[in-house]
Amino acid sequence: MNKQYTKIDEWNIIEEGLHPDDNRIYESIMSIGNGHMGMRGNFEEDYSGDSLQGTYIAGVYYPDKTRVGWWKNGYPEYFAKVLNATNFIGIGVMIDDEVIDLAKTKVEDFKRILNMKHGYLLRTFTIVDSKGRKTKVEVKRFTSIKDLEVAAISYSITPLNHDASVTFTPYLDGDVSNEDSNYGEKFWLEVDKSVDKYEGHLTMKTKKLDFHVCTAMKYNVLQDNIELKGQIESIEKEKYVGNTITVTAKKGSTTTLYKYIAVTTNRDYPVNEIKNASIERVNYAYDKGFDKLFEEHSNAWEERWLESDIIIEGDPSAQQGIRFNIFQLNQTYTGHDPRLNIGPKGFTGEKYGGSTYWDTEAYCLNFYLSTREQNIARNLLIYRYNHLEKAKENARKLGMKGALYPMVTMNGEECHNEWEITFEEIHRNAAISYAIYNYVRYTDDKDYLAEYGFEVLVETSRYWADRVNYNPFKDKYMILGVTGPNEYENNVNNNWYTNTMAAWNLDYTLKVKEFLKNEYPDRYEELIDKLNLTDKETEKWQDIIDKMYYPYIESLDVFEQQDGYMDKEMKTVDDIPKDELPINQNWSWDRILRSCFIKQADVLQGLYFLNDRYDLETKKRNFDFYEPKTVHESSLSPCVYSIIAAEIGYEDKAYELYLRTARLDLDNYNNDTDDGLHITSMAGTWMSIVHGFGGMRIKNDTLSLSPFIPKAWARYSFKILFRGHLLKVITDKDQVRIVQEKGDTFTLKIYDEDYTLNENGEITVDIQHQQISLAVN
Amino acid sequence: MNKQYTKIDEWNIIEEGLHPDDNRIYESIMSIGNGHMGMRGNFEEDYSGDSLQGTYIAGVYYPDKTRVGWWKNGYPEYFAKVLNATNFIGIGVMIDDEVIDLAKTKVEDFKRILNMKHGYLLRTFTIVDSKGRKTKVEVKRFTSIKDLEVAAISYSITPLNHDASVTFTPYLDGDVSNEDSNYGEKFWLEVDKSVDKYEGHLTMKTKKLDFHVCTAMKYNVLQDNIELKGQIESIEKEKYVGNTITVTAKKGSTTTLYKYIAVTTNRDYPVNEIKNASIERVNYAYDKGFDKLFEEHSNAWEERWLESDIIIEGDPSAQQGIRFNIFQLNQTYTGHDPRLNIGPKGFTGEKYGGSTYWDTEAYCLNFYLSTREQNIARNLLIYRYNHLEKAKENARKLGMKGALYPMVTMNGEECHNEWEITFEEIHRNAAISYAIYNYVRYTDDKDYLAEYGFEVLVETSRYWADRVNYNPFKDKYMILGVTGPNEYENNVNNNWYTNTMAAWNLDYTLKVKEFLKNEYPDRYEELIDKLNLTDKETEKWQDIIDKMYYPYIESLDVFEQQDGYMDKEMKTVDDIPKDELPINQNWSWDRILRSCFIKQADVLQGLYFLNDRYDLETKKRNFDFYEPKTVHESSLSPCVYSIIAAEIGYEDKAYELYLRTARLDLDNYNNDTDDGLHITSMAGTWMSIVHGFGGMRIKNDTLSLSPFIPKAWARYSFKILFRGHLLKVITDKDQVRIVQEKGDTFTLKIYDEDYTLNENGEITVDIQHQQISLAVN
Repeated sequence: MNKQYTKIDEWNIIEEGLHPDDNRIYESIMSIGNGHMGMRGNFEEDYSGDSLQGTYIAGVYYPDKTRVGWWKNGYPEYFAKVLNATNFIGIGVMIDDEVIDLAKTKVEDFKRILNMKHGYLLRTFTIVDSKGRKTKVEVKRFTSIKDLEVAAISYSITPLNHDASVTFTPYLDGDVSNEDSNYGEKFWLEVDKSVDKYEGHLTMKTKKLDFHVCTAMKYNVLQDNIELKGQIESIEKEKYVGNTITVTAKKGSTTTLYKYIAVTTNRDYPVNEIKNASIERVNYAYDKGFDKLFEEHSNAWEERWLESDIIIEGDPSAQQGIRFNIFQLNQTYTGHDPRLNIGPKGFTGEKYGGSTYWDTEAYCLNFYLSTREQNIARNLLIYRYNHLEKAKENARKLGMKGALYPMVTMNGEECHNEWEITFEEIHRNAAISYAIYNYVRYTDDKDYLAEYGFEVLVETSRYWADRVNYNPFKDKYMILGVTGPNEYENNVNNNWYTNTMAAWNLDYTLKVKEFLKNEYPDRYEELIDKLNLTDKETEKWQDIIDKMYYPYIESLDVFEQQDGYMDKEMKTVDDIPKDELPINQNWSWDRILRSCFIKQADVLQGLYFLNDRYDLETKKRNFDFYEPKTVHESSLSPCVYSIIAAEIGYEDKAYELYLRTARLDLDNYNNDTDDGLHITSMAGTWMSIVHGFGGMRIKNDTLSLSPFIPKAWARYSFKILFRGHLLKVITDKDQVRIVQEKGDTFTLKIYDEDYTLNENGEITVDIQHQQISLAVN
Repeated sequence: MNKQYTKIDEWNIIEEGLHPDDNRIYESIMSIGNGHMGMRGNFEEDYSGDSLQGTYIAGVYYPDKTRVGWWKNGYPEYFAKVLNATNFIGIGVMIDDEVIDLAKTKVEDFKRILNMKHGYLLRTFTIVDSKGRKTKVEVKRFTSIKDLEVAAISYSITPLNHDASVTFTPYLDGDVSNEDSNYGEKFWLEVDKSVDKYEGHLTMKTKKLDFHVCTAMKYNVLQDNIELKGQIESIEKEKYVGNTITVTAKKGSTTTLYKYIAVTTNRDYPVNEIKNASIERVNYAYDKGFDKLFEEHSNAWEERWLESDIIIEGDPSAQQGIRFNIFQLNQTYTGHDPRLNIGPKGFTGEKYGGSTYWDTEAYCLNFYLSTREQNIARNLLIYRYNHLEKAKENARKLGMKGALYPMVTMNGEECHNEWEITFEEIHRNAAISYAIYNYVRYTDDKDYLAEYGFEVLVETSRYWADRVNYNPFKDKYMILGVTGPNEYENNVNNNWYTNTMAAWNLDYTLKVKEFLKNEYPDRYEELIDKLNLTDKETEKWQDIIDKMYYPYIESLDVFEQQDGYMDKEMKTVDDIPKDELPINQNWSWDRILRSCFIKQADVLQGLYFLNDRYDLETKKRNFDFYEPKTVHESSLSPCVYSIIAAEIGYEDKAYELYLRTARLDLDNYNNDTDDGLHITSMAGTWMSIVHGFGGMRIKNDTLSLSPFIPKAWARYSFKILFRGHLLKVITDKDQVRIVQEKGDTFTLKIYDEDYTLNENGEITVDIQHQQISLAVN
């Protein structure tokens, strides 16, 4: 059983009492953001206890120098690092000469609450000083999802049994560093700053890439709704501006400091305009006032929930879990800027450098496809189209033809520097193509293929065609020296998933070619010409498709994860002593590599992606073989297993696996929530419900559903947007009800039967999903 | 054809004319050292051109923090780095207000000469200033091999056509950094310093490990043998002390500054004594004077050459090459301190951190065994014995039993941090055991087994027994996930060499156990008890020996380098376009890994080590298969191939491969001499002659020789010390003559026939080595 960190509540994440030892975990969980910026649940006032300070600005990063013991040709020069930016939440607080520092000050009734319905962070607590004087504190902050450059904080104190002299120090502090920086190196240089009574600004720029970020603040202090003037002093230090304002807080009265912040960057403005823009935005926020700003923000959240909420009845813990995931996904990526993407940790930590991984294509795309307008998902595809030239350069660096998309990127260039990942985890290339396929089958936006998609498909195919080698002894094409999705195997030969997806990529490209030839003949000619695509080349592709080698375990009729997998000592996760889990924190890497244990869906990932190709029996045999060997030490793992388990009727297993993903961060399941949240895998949780329990598939251009309900739940519902139809799918113990909230008449499949759904219509069908008991476990 | 960098000369390495573009290469080649310290062939005076400054002190290093994109459990915290230390050779020179800087000053008749016979570096050149004034300069320096803490420089100038005012600035500069340091970080802190007329000292300490190094200097200036007083000013800066001394140099007269240096460290003295020790040593040197110091140093070199010289007649280039190698080996390791070992770059560069690799056991040991007294080689073994506890800790860190010696070390701890090397290149463990076997069969020092060897053998065996896994389908033991000696394959299963050497290690341990039981029964009981060695454990070892799996290519009757090697595209080095060589500088790592190309002897290393086990036909088949696929991009590679080629009668091939190793650095064969010299592989060159052309083996306790002479040579001779016998082996076109220079009557084998050699006796035998033509090439 995992520890219960927060209180169960359907719309809130609640920490009761201070937890200094687990503070980083709570800081991660309580992160807020709005796609433009975000920060961890750090405290506004001083805190001398353990904390990971983190404020992050989308698209602002630092190219850290690659340093390795043995330089390998082809390594990128740098490793992108998401930067901890100017701390703008800071408000020092002193009450009667005692500085509030929750690591030292006596505190009662501490609560930290993340309100997901309206998108804000709230803290309430009572300070008790050495003389027994009690002061109530309430702090609320949000980053506006209406005005993306704006954040606001209200910091209220109410002396309960005394009159108090209170000094607030609202400030902007750019003298911050990254925890993972070498020898404490700092990445920011001061450009300019100013400070005056009630306001200040600070412009910093990053070393090397010269990202400029201007942060402006403005504040006022009110008591019983009357503005206090107080005694003010300005503070100006290196990389820092602030005010101290001292006021008298009367017993029983509430004194509130409202701090407004605007953050602008040279990604959006010319460098010489960011200061003015920032000041303009902070004045706008200040003039509007906290309550109005919050109201607009809060309304926007309500609207977003209308489209993407999943409601689970009878299981508040599951309800909280799924809402937390949807909330974080919507905080991280808004689709407003095609230059941005979804970092694995979003705005919640430094790890993974905040860069783009294949997580976007394999997981996140599904969430945005079904819950937001088509354009948002399309922007995720355009992001990769815009990086095609860099992907070609990347292939060239490795001596290959075509395009190899980077494993990790900020701007299209590879910025990860471990050879077994960077050079060898090439299956990502197929995920980029798969996303095109997935997007088109979902949206029917075939223009996309003509306009952008085909070029990406051809160049990724060229890479594959160059990357295979022909083995004359076996008359087969092989792919040697790869890392599959299961990163607990490095430099293996013929990873089944990689070989399968490579051949699929080639095949899909040929199909799209044929389609364009027939349907977009002019554009087709233009593209063939531009890409210089010859019959000889495509014939070679066909030969590779026909003669691809797939490792196979004959005695079990199961796909073999890679050549030689069966030479390993065959064990199951049950054989691992509990205190050695997770193995990536307890075993040395060589031991992990030579073990049979699987980090995340590998063969199963293929069964999920190419779902139509394999019958239920095949899925079942492979699931039965691989699932007991899978440690799920990637947050991206359980959701895929859960979806397959649901499909083959292992409903209990599907639910068990769902639980590992649904509350991964809330329950700190992988013991690493302190580093930040697993944002991209949150899309996997959503998939576990919609693709797993709901059985949603697209089959021959038709939406198909096949829902069941986990035993622990009384009823659940999810919403999907499909080709202009907004549907609500409500499943209870006996029936599935599908309500069309938007859209005209269309046909869909439920349990593989055709149904017609009218405008504003609904259909009710009896549950027909069949549960199968697991042979194993 | 490779570029000719230096002039051919039997005893000297000569650079004629300045080569600013290749300066780093010459600096490496012109390195001098004495086991205690050494430095690259940097200039004494200012030089603003490209240069890699390097002064290195044995055993002084810095533990650089390991930084990787993905931390793997078991990684060492640090990566040891040999430190560039206080520059003590520095002498600024100004002639008539013009600073000498050979990157800017006009220079004629420049020569830089490394004299190997007497161990010094000489530079001569003539300065021509803007007014046509010419000044001849001659600079000579050495690091004494008699007084290890002492170095001395004579810097002479002779104005040819003018009287000159000359200002010398002899100094000690501790404000140095390593080229590979991150963001220019410096690793030295100043402790104390003093400067006075004609002398100064500077004590620096390293960050983190607090190595203290005190450098003292003392100098005088003589003109026509009369000491000049000159005008002197002291300079004291952070981490720097120096003098300027201005004198008048008369036309035609020679003015010489003699700079004496002493370097002491807290490895040899208590910290509070190193300053006094250093000053005492520099006074000693100063009082003795340059000529006397040099004479003693020079005599010591002559003595050393008497024992270790190889003479080649009819091929001055080969003569120069082999002497260069022997010279560098003797400069690097003197065996005077069992805490020291042989860094791959010695005192010639930063790369590889100056640490100890398996190179010592596999290559260097042979050279020291045959050319120095037994105690020197024994010290190399004791070095590892002293690290046994750390090797056990290292195994524990990886979750294994027994002892795993580090791949790279300074103090017994692993200090390399790439998983494919650190965690997986485990064959090194067998090399540690093999060195014991090799030492004992050479010296007959069986006491060593009882005293030290057996413990190492048992603990390495325990590691192997834990590291194998039993495969029930094949009833074989396998070793999965390793990197063999050929580092162009990572994380492979069942590397033939590793499996072979692991089983050999277990087998040798059992044999030594039996031997000790019979010959050292008391010690045996003591050891069995200490090691808690049970019959059950040794029975398991026997089972592993009996059932070890060895990959094998049946169709060719050849050992397979590892599982799956034959799935690669089979090519030969001839197929690689010339401009893509060396592949490690031109191909990305994944491409190297999936290719069939071999970096260095792997299967062949096994054939060399376990030479007795394999018949000539087996060696020939494996050589024929693997040699054409070997790129020899490790300096350790060609020598092993050369030895096997010699043995199987491929005399021309043996010579061709020998040439690649003999002049590797002099001809910058691998295009990396600029980083420093390949010190450890120089032992391989020596082996190519003695084990290769000379066919030296130890067979059943008997020395065996089987010489031939390469076509290009008229005659060659080498010397070996074997169990108290000093032998000179002289081979010409027709005959082999073996002269016993020291030792009493004994029996040896020549071409597998027994001969008896008397005290001061000699034997002459006709050449019987048979040349075979290569089928390939």
